[in-house]
Amino acid sequence: MRERFVEWRPRIDEAIEELVPRVIDETYLGDFFGEATYQYQSEAIQAALADPLWNLLDRGGKRWRSVLFLVMIEAVGEDPAEYLPFACIPEILHNGTIIVDDVEDGAQKRRGTTALHHVFGTDIALNAGNAMYFIPLKVIDQNDDILDDGQRLQTYEMLTHELNRTHLGQGMDIYWHNQEAVSVDEQRYYEMCACKTGCLARIVSRLAAIVTDKPDRVEYRLARYAEEMSIAFQIGDDILDIEHTLDKAGEFGKEFGNDIREGKKTLMVIYTVEHASTEQAARLEEILWADDNTDEEILEAIDIMQSVDALAYARERAQDLAASARGHLDELDLESEAETDLQEFTRFVIEREA
Amino acid sequence: MRERFVEWRPRIDEAIEELVPRVIDETYLGDFFGEATYQYQSEAIQAALADPLWNLLDRGGKRWRSVLFLVMIEAVGEDPAEYLPFACIPEILHNGTIIVDDVEDGAQKRRGTTALHHVFGTDIALNAGNAMYFIPLKVIDQNDDILDDGQRLQTYEMLTHELNRTHLGQGMDIYWHNQEAVSVDEQRYYEMCACKTGCLARIVSRLAAIVTDKPDRVEYRLARYAEEMSIAFQIGDDILDIEHTLDKAGEFGKEFGNDIREGKKTLMVIYTVEHASTEQAARLEEILWADDNTDEEILEAIDIMQSVDALAYARERAQDLAASARGHLDELDLESEAETDLQEFTRFVIEREA
Repeated sequence: MRERFVEWRPRIDEAIEELVPRVIDETYLGDFFGEATYQYQSEAIQAALADPLWNLLDRGGKRWRSVLFLVMIEAVGEDPAEYLPFACIPEILHNGTIIVDDVEDGAQKRRGTTALHHVFGTDIALNAGNAMYFIPLKVIDQNDDILDDGQRLQTYEMLTHELNRTHLGQGMDIYWHNQEAVSVDEQRYYEMCACKTGCLARIVSRLAAIVTDKPDRVEYRLARYAEEMSIAFQIGDDILDIEHTLDKAGEFGKEFGNDIREGKKTLMVIYTVEHASTEQAARLEEILWADDNTDEEILEAIDIMQSVDALAYARERAQDLAASARGHLDELDLESEAETDLQEFTRFVIEREA
Repeated sequence: MRERFVEWRPRIDEAIEELVPRVIDETYLGDFFGEATYQYQSEAIQAALADPLWNLLDRGGKRWRSVLFLVMIEAVGEDPAEYLPFACIPEILHNGTIIVDDVEDGAQKRRGTTALHHVFGTDIALNAGNAMYFIPLKVIDQNDDILDDGQRLQTYEMLTHELNRTHLGQGMDIYWHNQEAVSVDEQRYYEMCACKTGCLARIVSRLAAIVTDKPDRVEYRLARYAEEMSIAFQIGDDILDIEHTLDKAGEFGKEFGNDIREGKKTLMVIYTVEHASTEQAARLEEILWADDNTDEEILEAIDIMQSVDALAYARERAQDLAASARGHLDELDLESEAETDLQEFTRFVIEREA
């Protein structure tokens, strides 16, 4: 798996540069956005689009959505190199949502350094983030030699559907976040993850099936695999935040007890509120809701969660979801080396250490 | 023309309610967003989507994009009532951009009262605004009895193209806004307007032509009409801001000298910087760039613009554009009553008083 990242990452970035070059000129603008009615200004678009986009991408990121897409193409028996431009779609969309999320959350940092809206200003950052919701769709139009009319229409309808659900999931998450009481149950938490995180992974899968013209059955199973893996990933992420807090690992990008300070309603919080005593549940809600927390309060919150074995419960659920995700792959007749990698992905998302 | 607004506005709002009801329940969520994998939470979606959307729409707004769409449908000889759901597309898109723009600009007010992100919080408002970029696209999918596969594909490609250009225009505008020197010339100013304001009006026109299956020639002319009218509208808006400042009309939604305080690079500013003396141009740039302005500085800036007759120049350009917009209608064989209304639109945009 690791070698795939090494192999593909530079080629993915080249494909992204085809869509949004690091240096913008008027020829590119005319080609990509259509001939100007009057006159474009390339330096403005450089500053408003290319600079923020590449500033974020150059901070790192594994491009795992693109790599997952390419591995899926191989898994269904096709040549990933032929479909490289499509790998940009989920990657640019994802990075767009990151910029927007950081504005929504008033985040200070991203990938270890200043959040984009604090570097470029909220206006430039947000406009660039939103532009990144539409720029990658141009790939569909540009590749009408690979996709026939039916496939292009299917792609647009799929993206519209999944991006609508992404905003639904984000809405649910924000709503819970803005309430003191934990009003969400486990099923709704999974739904939120399935929408908010899962839909981008579903885009990866469904796109791989659509562009290679595979039957609905393949599209469905790959999408379910991606969705369940994403929920497992989200739970894994929340567990990691607690584990790192317990380790007080200062090197980790996040601050100490970040999720608790933010008041995040994680699966562990939901499970604890359902299983701890009324007093303990109320105390946990109080700590999560407070504007500021001392380090002692952070540890107290974790103690309450640990008293009902919430971490162990969350880890089990993540493992179940990852196993179920692998089950969807078993239903398909995939190319074996790529299938092994897809299975490895489901382990990586819950066993990673950062 | 006025009676059309009276006739259509309630029906447009009914059509929008079909897409996003005022009261969200799980049946609607399942129908619109597809069956939940786990379980939706209607109260979260109510608070995160329906409430902010209707809060903004209920503040007023003429729904002129929807009305323009319906008049165009009539102008090309079809029955507007049959295409009502499509009228929601530009309207919801436009209101989404309003929410996002206000976050970008850090605006305090919208339509005479508190800006949405100050009512609901930046997180809820921004997510709702962005959701409004994708919700209306569902109309395409839902009306496959009216649109064949080719028309649906054309609609998606058209929207992708125009929404990409919208972000390009917004990027240009923000970039100029963030610079002290006026580095933009007239041609680029028109391009910015054509992209930022014009693309949504182009969506109105092109959609009307596509859904009624009219030839490319009709789509092209209607789009050019809408584009030029939008630029005229934008210039008219900037002239109004100055005129109201001179009248010190306190009732007007905007503050005294709003555009000058914001440092907006309007056509009048561009023309003045090109035609005034170096000292006067520098003084105008200085006033525009300052964090705060006294009322005297506002009037001084206007005096500098008046010294080169910038307002008269801008008014002439707006009239030329409106006349040219009407010229595109003459090239088409339109239903006469609706054509008269379309012509009236181009006068309204530069002769309105608020």
